[in-house]
Amino acid sequence: MNGSIKKTALEDIIFSFLPPREGYGKRVREAMSQAVKNGGKRIRPLLMGGTYRLFSDGDEERERRLLWPFQASMEMIHSYSLVHDDLPAIDNDELRRGQPTTWKLFGEGMAVIAGDGLLNHAYLILARALLGLEEEDHKRAFIRSMERLAHHSGVDGMIGGQTADILLTGKIPSPDEIDYIYQNKTGALLKASMGIGAILGGAGLEQEAGIEKIAACLGMAYQIRDDILDVESSPELLGKPVLSDDKNNKITYVSLYGMEEAKKEAERLGQEALELLVRISPEKGELYALMEGLLHRKK
Amino acid sequence: MNGSIKKTALEDIIFSFLPPREGYGKRVREAMSQAVKNGGKRIRPLLMGGTYRLFSDGDEERERRLLWPFQASMEMIHSYSLVHDDLPAIDNDELRRGQPTTWKLFGEGMAVIAGDGLLNHAYLILARALLGLEEEDHKRAFIRSMERLAHHSGVDGMIGGQTADILLTGKIPSPDEIDYIYQNKTGALLKASMGIGAILGGAGLEQEAGIEKIAACLGMAYQIRDDILDVESSPELLGKPVLSDDKNNKITYVSLYGMEEAKKEAERLGQEALELLVRISPEKGELYALMEGLLHRKK
Repeated sequence: MNGSIKKTALEDIIFSFLPPREGYGKRVREAMSQAVKNGGKRIRPLLMGGTYRLFSDGDEERERRLLWPFQASMEMIHSYSLVHDDLPAIDNDELRRGQPTTWKLFGEGMAVIAGDGLLNHAYLILARALLGLEEEDHKRAFIRSMERLAHHSGVDGMIGGQTADILLTGKIPSPDEIDYIYQNKTGALLKASMGIGAILGGAGLEQEAGIEKIAACLGMAYQIRDDILDVESSPELLGKPVLSDDKNNKITYVSLYGMEEAKKEAERLGQEALELLVRISPEKGELYALMEGLLHRKK
Repeated sequence: MNGSIKKTALEDIIFSFLPPREGYGKRVREAMSQAVKNGGKRIRPLLMGGTYRLFSDGDEERERRLLWPFQASMEMIHSYSLVHDDLPAIDNDELRRGQPTTWKLFGEGMAVIAGDGLLNHAYLILARALLGLEEEDHKRAFIRSMERLAHHSGVDGMIGGQTADILLTGKIPSPDEIDYIYQNKTGALLKASMGIGAILGGAGLEQEAGIEKIAACLGMAYQIRDDILDVESSPELLGKPVLSDDKNNKITYVSLYGMEEAKKEAERLGQEALELLVRISPEKGELYALMEGLLHRKK
């Protein structure tokens, strides 16, 4: 599976790691499956794969054993965070990607434990894959990546960002606070995705640090782009109501700095990310195209 | 740290693995800390330690590097499951161990992500500890234990049990269904605790299977005891209202089979667990005393 990978092929890989839908716990498995299958853009596993292939030697077996489990785990963690974020107790969102949210379809209690199930399953996938590894350098890269994933998903990463986001809802955040939220709530998993792609692909420590820097710029630019689209896009394109930030009483880059400034900042950060990437890899390949697409997306 | 370990010493170990309470994400860290520190009985890490010492050679370094991270992780996973179970969307409980529940103290949204934070942190602790291991047999036992933990915590274990519990609330479960709920919702983490203690302590595969059988009997007996106490105890002893199962519209062993039958079954299962243990380890040591205490507890 060398070179660029199509989104549908990637989805086949991710879905193959979902638990089978059978037995007494069937209902929660259905909710988990719905949450993962509901048409995401698969940005995180795509970025992970693109970064991985920047460094890897194209060994298919290595890709299957190391990369695939992390691509699946990452998407399960991202999905669980959306299921919980959408709950009435947090964002109270009824639509996601044009479809009813998990709690609207399965009830609140089931959505809580479906999210838990996805988070836990992400680590089960990794523990099982790790058990099957034999080569010492594979194991080392795998365990380092697990640590990075858990770090960026937790209180020092995504959950830290969600905390600040919840606490600052209805308040005007300081520039530092809004940066913290963006770097963590959205940025942390992008950093983890690209960082893990680098580790698993065999990057050196310096290259890994370079990739994390790129991911940080990309994450900020991506989130600001999100705010811009929340104001300028249409519900048909977005799959959710526009001005949902407004409805949720959330201050964004756009409401804090104005549309023009927000666009300028997204452009600047996006350019920085692309330029840093060219320094690591001058030929503009899979990862470059992917990042460019994300930076200029319309939905 | 050979021989029996006091509960307070164990709590010091567990608490030392909590994330520091500082930074923008401080509030969620406080909620996580509250959830773990709120006076649990620490049954799971105690059983893990007791089982571990049944097999281990008393090497303190091994205990510190292998056992401690799993004792902490297990208690974080147990705590997260209580935080989420208590939510209005599930059991809607306002008291736990005589104290307001996490969502009452911190709000529902914060309780959702504090639970997520604990579950994720459990795996971060393990990934970090694993990174520091050097001996091949330590690593192997550690990774196998991670797989067991994630298996029993997930849809094939605790979360499967919670699913059935939620779906059957207000309905009359069949004997098979109530067994499934008890074996999974409560039983799965007890099985994981004792099974992991055995693996980390160096038990052989046959001993490990024996321990899992003991844990299964103990888990059922323990949960039926819980139902009995829910009817017969006082709120002062329990730290929560009696007849809370009734209030939550939940059918239990007691309501399904009657008090006399429930007591007989708890006694029978408890005896079986103790007899199976004596076959593995004839001297009645730390684990035997611990199990006996659990089987005859008054709260």
